[in-house]
Amino acid sequence: MAASLMKTIGAGVLRAEHAGDTVTLAGWVARRRDHGGVIFIDLRDASGIVQVVLNPEDSPASEEVLHGLRSEYCVQVIGTVRPRPDGTSNEDLPTGDLEVVGELLNVLSPSAPLPFQIDERVDVDESKRLEFRYLDMRRTRMAENLKARSKAIGAMRRVMDRDGFLEVETPTLIASTPEGARDMLVPSRLRPGNFYALPQSPQLFKQLLMIGGVERYYQVAKCYRDEDFRADRQIEFTQLDFEGSFWGQDDVLEVLERIVSEVVMELRGETVEIPLRKMTYAEAMDRFGTDKPDLRFGMEIANLSEVFSDTEFKAFAGVLGADGGVWGINGGKLSLSRSGLDGLVSRAQDLGAKGLVWMVVEEDGTLRSPVAKFLSDEELEGIKTVLCAGTGDTLLIAADDVRVVGKVLGQLRLDIGQPDGNDELAFAFVVDFPVFDVAEDGSLSPAHHPFTNPGDVDVLVNSPEKAVSKAYDLVLNGSELGSGSVRIHDPDVQAKVFEVMGISAQDAESRFGWFLEALRYGTPPHAGFAIGIDRFVSILRDEPNIREIIPFPKTQTGADPLTGSPSRVDEEQLSELGIDIRPEVRARWVEEEDRADGEGAVET
Amino acid sequence: MAASLMKTIGAGVLRAEHAGDTVTLAGWVARRRDHGGVIFIDLRDASGIVQVVLNPEDSPASEEVLHGLRSEYCVQVIGTVRPRPDGTSNEDLPTGDLEVVGELLNVLSPSAPLPFQIDERVDVDESKRLEFRYLDMRRTRMAENLKARSKAIGAMRRVMDRDGFLEVETPTLIASTPEGARDMLVPSRLRPGNFYALPQSPQLFKQLLMIGGVERYYQVAKCYRDEDFRADRQIEFTQLDFEGSFWGQDDVLEVLERIVSEVVMELRGETVEIPLRKMTYAEAMDRFGTDKPDLRFGMEIANLSEVFSDTEFKAFAGVLGADGGVWGINGGKLSLSRSGLDGLVSRAQDLGAKGLVWMVVEEDGTLRSPVAKFLSDEELEGIKTVLCAGTGDTLLIAADDVRVVGKVLGQLRLDIGQPDGNDELAFAFVVDFPVFDVAEDGSLSPAHHPFTNPGDVDVLVNSPEKAVSKAYDLVLNGSELGSGSVRIHDPDVQAKVFEVMGISAQDAESRFGWFLEALRYGTPPHAGFAIGIDRFVSILRDEPNIREIIPFPKTQTGADPLTGSPSRVDEEQLSELGIDIRPEVRARWVEEEDRADGEGAVET
Repeated sequence: MAASLMKTIGAGVLRAEHAGDTVTLAGWVARRRDHGGVIFIDLRDASGIVQVVLNPEDSPASEEVLHGLRSEYCVQVIGTVRPRPDGTSNEDLPTGDLEVVGELLNVLSPSAPLPFQIDERVDVDESKRLEFRYLDMRRTRMAENLKARSKAIGAMRRVMDRDGFLEVETPTLIASTPEGARDMLVPSRLRPGNFYALPQSPQLFKQLLMIGGVERYYQVAKCYRDEDFRADRQIEFTQLDFEGSFWGQDDVLEVLERIVSEVVMELRGETVEIPLRKMTYAEAMDRFGTDKPDLRFGMEIANLSEVFSDTEFKAFAGVLGADGGVWGINGGKLSLSRSGLDGLVSRAQDLGAKGLVWMVVEEDGTLRSPVAKFLSDEELEGIKTVLCAGTGDTLLIAADDVRVVGKVLGQLRLDIGQPDGNDELAFAFVVDFPVFDVAEDGSLSPAHHPFTNPGDVDVLVNSPEKAVSKAYDLVLNGSELGSGSVRIHDPDVQAKVFEVMGISAQDAESRFGWFLEALRYGTPPHAGFAIGIDRFVSILRDEPNIREIIPFPKTQTGADPLTGSPSRVDEEQLSELGIDIRPEVRARWVEEEDRADGEGAVET
Repeated sequence: MAASLMKTIGAGVLRAEHAGDTVTLAGWVARRRDHGGVIFIDLRDASGIVQVVLNPEDSPASEEVLHGLRSEYCVQVIGTVRPRPDGTSNEDLPTGDLEVVGELLNVLSPSAPLPFQIDERVDVDESKRLEFRYLDMRRTRMAENLKARSKAIGAMRRVMDRDGFLEVETPTLIASTPEGARDMLVPSRLRPGNFYALPQSPQLFKQLLMIGGVERYYQVAKCYRDEDFRADRQIEFTQLDFEGSFWGQDDVLEVLERIVSEVVMELRGETVEIPLRKMTYAEAMDRFGTDKPDLRFGMEIANLSEVFSDTEFKAFAGVLGADGGVWGINGGKLSLSRSGLDGLVSRAQDLGAKGLVWMVVEEDGTLRSPVAKFLSDEELEGIKTVLCAGTGDTLLIAADDVRVVGKVLGQLRLDIGQPDGNDELAFAFVVDFPVFDVAEDGSLSPAHHPFTNPGDVDVLVNSPEKAVSKAYDLVLNGSELGSGSVRIHDPDVQAKVFEVMGISAQDAESRFGWFLEALRYGTPPHAGFAIGIDRFVSILRDEPNIREIIPFPKTQTGADPLTGSPSRVDEEQLSELGIDIRPEVRARWVEEEDRADGEGAVET
């Protein structure tokens, strides 16, 4: 950081070699101690902390000023660096061998009493932290998270630059997109009654850039999605968005490997093993019951249907068929009590299973289980073999439709086996996604946006439920970091996909006719990806939710406790935009106000 | 650019050293010529153009395919690089010494007939270019502009990184800000009837970051302003936004000098002379009649009031006083006809002058002018001396209120003297802006946002019209590139400024009480700046307007001819947001539709 007149060096960068130097520091009073009239300050700034010693007798600063110093006063100190006296070093601080003897102290700004202490060890309610985010940021955790985010984005840009990508800004006031229902809208003042939409992603614009001959595009793009806030979503979020022409899937995955390596090295100093693991969607669902498998541990789902092909146990026999069967996982040495095991059963039921069979391998090799008595010896042996069961292992078995079992055992696997935190990083690509998600009732819904290359068009048309698209995800420790696909570059294929997806030609034309027009002018084959930066950095920083690495996030109700957004606005402004609040909403306001008034009346 | 299976090298990077190499190219057919059955293609991709020779007899591609090739077909060519035969080099192309003998040609995508030719020499209507922006981008001008924009932003980031700035993303769904009336609004779905605003700048958030201890912040920030589109504005625009703590004005200006140097070197390979020129607002107004002087030429405004202190010429004598006087510029050797000179007079009147006196210095040193006969010899000599008039020079003199004269002569100076284009770059800082703009009727309006440090608070309170704030602009060739200021960090000063600006304490509290609260917790002194990237790059690229360097701009009516935004949206969507279109707007729609129907009826 360049020096300024007001501050010649950062507190945290001082080292033994600076001993004897006169320095001008500026920062905040992290701690103040008074030892027999001599004041010790822990002075904190963006670079770290250093101890400052102020003796009212040696310093022109008046005793009154020094004794008036409080936490988080913003101060400037001119002083001399010296080694700390023997035996007083602080090994927890990089500057712990030295201190600054202050000769002059200026209070640049006093601080009001704090709503919470700026101290890692103090637990503060999140809504309080968000309301005073600027104070929360002075704490090491948030300060380090902001730095990590900046560094991660810097690392991504380096890869993009090295690979010859052009950074292009796509517009954020756009026309409503295919997934229009969740678009956030912006009323236009120049054309009252008309609206822009905020982008859910730069998808169509980056495809236009490919049509425009850009060949390599990237952008750190702000995107918007107006949906109910799930635990770990924000209405505005940031993604690294990139696209390349004359590219297939492997070209994208190689770029991703470079990005992942660079970011992990930057943030954690670790080397990522390349190539990353790659598995098909079908394999991920089979083995882990999910398309975002956590590969840090085994406990894979194994198919036991063969073992029970002739079973007389009705609960199992009844499900065997085209989409049904028996599957199990080996939960390892869980040593659960009977009630612990029952807890797993009810968890499975909550997840949609009709039931769950547990078995524990006894010392003598027998399987203890409520259903053991209904199973043949061959079946019991078969279970042990398929699940590689050893003494003390707990086996969990479910029999149902494949989708239900996958969901249930996949989640139980995580409940039981998923490591705390993210010390280990297990990346993987999941490829060959289906074109359609098949619901339990057999109905089809598109698994990706309709610009995804559907692979074999004949299969798509004749057996859409079997069609495999050129779509791929990047997964880390059980979370989806991002997704991408090879895109459709042939307008005839695009028309066919719309048709199969049930989007009429007329509908397609009215919703994105302009894009279909663009496809007609020599569109290159192209492919791309988008990585969610918030999620990626939060995992690397081992934070439990993305709000921790967003400087000013919204709460789960979409509110900002700091600024009070969203809020009501001027009537005049609405009038200029040609819009009005609906009467039923206004009526609710009146009710709320009446109620508030009523409450007030009771209090007085 | 990394190679891919589909394309091993860029067309434009081929050089003599590649002779003999087998290459796989992919790009677009820029031109196709047929010479006795042999086809010559100019193959264009993001890296440039190379000539490809295809002989149907040697190539497995069928004659039909080759002869079917049309402009902008997207093709892949596998072939061998060879030097061109003697005498057939094309010196206009970096690849002009060689050609690629195609052995295989794949048409990746055909192109429909083009709405306009992809050719620099063809002039295309801007609305057509915007409607087919993806084709416009294939033209060298736009392709180079996009690259320049990406490079300029890259250069800015390099400076920020070197100087230890943290890249921080501030939210774009915020609460309505001080300049609220122009905020673009986003209705909230979770809180129907409530609105977010899009930021006009990250001003308050970057100040919060300073309070949060970030010390060095930057962001390439998308900002929004919903105002009538002037010639060179967009509702969404991009700025490099930065802020530093423990900073004064000079710290900001030094960073700006590094940014400007890096960007100009990157885009034009030129060194910028540092330090940049610096002048006060008062000096700029005096000498150039504007706060964004074009310093590429002299022709400064000179004060002639002294010359006329005892004049008997009533038009001049009448204006001499506190705010009035006589000023002139030397327009140089304009050689204008009488009607040309009269044109300047009416231009001056259009600009608000009561009149304009012109004088031409004759061979014999006398001044030819309609008013010469009313002036004394001393006055005529005085004019010549003050304006350094030489033979053939045209002098322009105006007598009026200082503000009027400044505006008139400042603009005439530009009309007459401003160079075409931007071959020369004249940067300058303008500093010491007044806190208030004083209108001709003497009324005061804040010249900057209310968080600008007002300098001496006593002056502010007692003589607000004289108060000079710590605000500064960066100017290039007569355009304002950006502005910044030292901010207020003392809540008492902030309150005082609100008061003087006529913002009541209650109003201030309701509009940004959360920010006033933040100021109370040890706010560091801080200062910052924002550079308009669109404007800066457009000047460096010598483009007449910022739309030329924005990938997908809006027209002057805020519309996007490509996607059709803004547009009407679903009634259901509006209902979910708790808003409705006003009846009068709907009524207008019905009228428009009736009219359209009526027109249709006449046509049938």
